[in-house]
Amino acid sequence: MDCGDIKALVFDVFGTVVDWRTSIAREAEKCLSSKGYDLDWLSFADAWRGKYQPAMQKIRNGNRGFVRLDVLHRENLIEVLNDFDIKGLNDLELGDLNKAWHRLDPWPDSVMGLVRLKKKFIIGTMSNGNVALMVNMAKHGGLPWDVILGAEPAQSYKPEPKTYLTGVDWLNLNPSEVLMCAAHNSDLLAAAAQGLRTAFIARPTEYGPNQKEDFKAEHDFDYVSGNMIDLADQLGC
Amino acid sequence: MDCGDIKALVFDVFGTVVDWRTSIAREAEKCLSSKGYDLDWLSFADAWRGKYQPAMQKIRNGNRGFVRLDVLHRENLIEVLNDFDIKGLNDLELGDLNKAWHRLDPWPDSVMGLVRLKKKFIIGTMSNGNVALMVNMAKHGGLPWDVILGAEPAQSYKPEPKTYLTGVDWLNLNPSEVLMCAAHNSDLLAAAAQGLRTAFIARPTEYGPNQKEDFKAEHDFDYVSGNMIDLADQLGC
Repeated sequence: MDCGDIKALVFDVFGTVVDWRTSIAREAEKCLSSKGYDLDWLSFADAWRGKYQPAMQKIRNGNRGFVRLDVLHRENLIEVLNDFDIKGLNDLELGDLNKAWHRLDPWPDSVMGLVRLKKKFIIGTMSNGNVALMVNMAKHGGLPWDVILGAEPAQSYKPEPKTYLTGVDWLNLNPSEVLMCAAHNSDLLAAAAQGLRTAFIARPTEYGPNQKEDFKAEHDFDYVSGNMIDLADQLGC
Repeated sequence: MDCGDIKALVFDVFGTVVDWRTSIAREAEKCLSSKGYDLDWLSFADAWRGKYQPAMQKIRNGNRGFVRLDVLHRENLIEVLNDFDIKGLNDLELGDLNKAWHRLDPWPDSVMGLVRLKKKFIIGTMSNGNVALMVNMAKHGGLPWDVILGAEPAQSYKPEPKTYLTGVDWLNLNPSEVLMCAAHNSDLLAAAAQGLRTAFIARPTEYGPNQKEDFKAEHDFDYVSGNMIDLADQLGC
């Protein structure tokens, strides 16, 4: 399709731009093996991530006021450490392990793809991660964002319409001038419902052998791509 | 002084990073000379800028709800066109001329200085300009911001404390870990009152021959520099 009207690309980040699963496993091992623990680090990552959606759901439901994702991640970490019977982390160690989410590695194609896309478009985050998390992750991985948008700026978590629309408003664009890019069908459907255009980026190994969905685009999105380089090619960057 | 605790640098933009006066004069000439007008374009720029503080003051006073700077700039433009007896701009032309503020040129040292500072610190905007204005200006001038903070994210105009403190909060830092960089003594004093550290960057030609203040640092700021390269040198970048 013609991309002539698109001015900005906004990205889901966890899973779409960065590989949270192997990064969190690595960070957990680095922190906890030094304390004598040995466990299935990928399972630890999966368990921590498994508490992500339920924690945000309380806020989406209105059962809790908005708090940034760092706060939810920390509460979830305390639970998952308990679930794995891991003890003895002091406050500083807990805080540092929680910041593992600030040190996630990009997928191999992400930086090169974003650098190309940035030459033609505004590129921004549209993540449920908070601003500090996004900024620190960008410094860690070399992600060349023009702007950090998403949950904390909007004070609401995706897929709440306000999250997408606050970002669009701050860019002073129409929703149809903004392309939401994500590896998750549900994220793109929610963005499309607010008038944004949509690009699927396949990340079939995000959840490793546990992946159950999002192997491919399941709806009629504007673009369907295999990775960020492919998306740059399709957008003429 | 030791900069070991500083994690982020946030910048005033108009006057500190970009030269609004000659840029606005150039953009006004480009737009209006094609319509047969010939005038002192620098005076036009000064007149437009002259309406900037009074417009924000109504919002700071609580006499008006927050609107982004693009809105104030447009209202001010209509007034200044009237003051200069300039007629005949259609809505599209008015909108394009108003976006002159999105196309301001950096001072000659700004990009190189910021590129160096970015290697060691988070660098962000702490401007009264709105997000779209800041993002478009960064694309125009090659300003390598990590994050856009300031008035629109905080929904309040500097020197309101909320403007500085929302940015600090979103970075998840203590005020003392954030260095406010500006060419204006009053901006730095307001930031210091909230616990931020301060760096003066001299821009003695910002207002051309009309400059009346801010030729030099008038208070005991943490850093006093002649330009962005000098600041990078002092911060060991």
